[in-house]
Amino acid sequence: MTALILCNGEPPSLELLERYRQQADLIVCTDGAWGWLRDAGCRPQVIVGDMDSCTEPPACEIVDCGPHEAQENSDSEKALLLALDRGATEIVFLGATHRRLDHTLANVWLAAKYHGRARIVLVDDYGACEVVSGHRKLCVNPGSIISLVPLTRDVVVHTEGLKWRLNGPLEPGSRGLSNEAVSEEVTLDVATGLVAVVVVSHRT
Amino acid sequence: MTALILCNGEPPSLELLERYRQQADLIVCTDGAWGWLRDAGCRPQVIVGDMDSCTEPPACEIVDCGPHEAQENSDSEKALLLALDRGATEIVFLGATHRRLDHTLANVWLAAKYHGRARIVLVDDYGACEVVSGHRKLCVNPGSIISLVPLTRDVVVHTEGLKWRLNGPLEPGSRGLSNEAVSEEVTLDVATGLVAVVVVSHRT
Repeated sequence: MTALILCNGEPPSLELLERYRQQADLIVCTDGAWGWLRDAGCRPQVIVGDMDSCTEPPACEIVDCGPHEAQENSDSEKALLLALDRGATEIVFLGATHRRLDHTLANVWLAAKYHGRARIVLVDDYGACEVVSGHRKLCVNPGSIISLVPLTRDVVVHTEGLKWRLNGPLEPGSRGLSNEAVSEEVTLDVATGLVAVVVVSHRT
Repeated sequence: MTALILCNGEPPSLELLERYRQQADLIVCTDGAWGWLRDAGCRPQVIVGDMDSCTEPPACEIVDCGPHEAQENSDSEKALLLALDRGATEIVFLGATHRRLDHTLANVWLAAKYHGRARIVLVDDYGACEVVSGHRKLCVNPGSIISLVPLTRDVVVHTEGLKWRLNGPLEPGSRGLSNEAVSEEVTLDVATGLVAVVVVSHRT
């Protein structure tokens, strides 16, 4: 089951929203994201939040997790836990990146924390990011730009199908940036550690 | 000596650029950022890159580090190394966040990699991010929103001057998000591990 979670970072383009909305069995929205989602003409099945500042709550299920306080889970984490609880095996986040860097970093770590429980992908108009450990096969167009960004200091990785083959330790830094697929199938074996794998859709 | 490094992420507002430009003794720009910097009416002392696609190279020092290839340092890292080499003890990055998430993550890890050699701050219109280990004192306005995002899994932190005092292990996740300064002086003691500390300037 595929869940789409909408967060309060930079809203995605309407085209991107439409693409992932069509694939979703469950759409969950944090209350901070409800404004742009409504403006985009999309209604979620569930909103996570207290909707305190909303004068016209939408006709959908609202799961009130109480007021946001530091030291609790973020709204993104609450939405993710709800999606997992309802059986999601694939979770796509939109609006989980840009704007506040603290939120972006925390959302990447959220994907790392729960990546063993579902396939979690953070998507924006510049690419798709997934946290990988162990074995992972990517089906891509040859020529696609793919970055491997280590999230831990113990990463050992072996790759096939990339122009610059990585085979051994990969320290945090810029060495894994902007690699290129030379095959329709790219395989990653992350022997130890966690790697954020970004398939770039918009080069800058 | 303070260096300002301009990268090819989301260009900052003119107001932000102007503020940091006035404080800088050295302005270094990656060649990808030269376009928006020129449009903003600002000229760097150094451009790092080959300027291959530039028909009118500006009248400044151009340090050609050869064509960008994966498995080498990123342009951001080359600019940072140049600034350190020229004696920078304080380095502010602008345009190092947003747009491509792989670049944003790599730039945060760049700040982590070199944080012992200079004070490195990634600034955008939503806040300022610094990687901290050991002891750090922040001078802020009471009420400021401050997030602590662990970058490693071994973080143990003790804080003073925050509304929700953190005292002990802080696992990667959302627990350290959106804390609040209750004093003009906030102290952080990061006993082990690395923490990205974000002082938020624009709440969303």
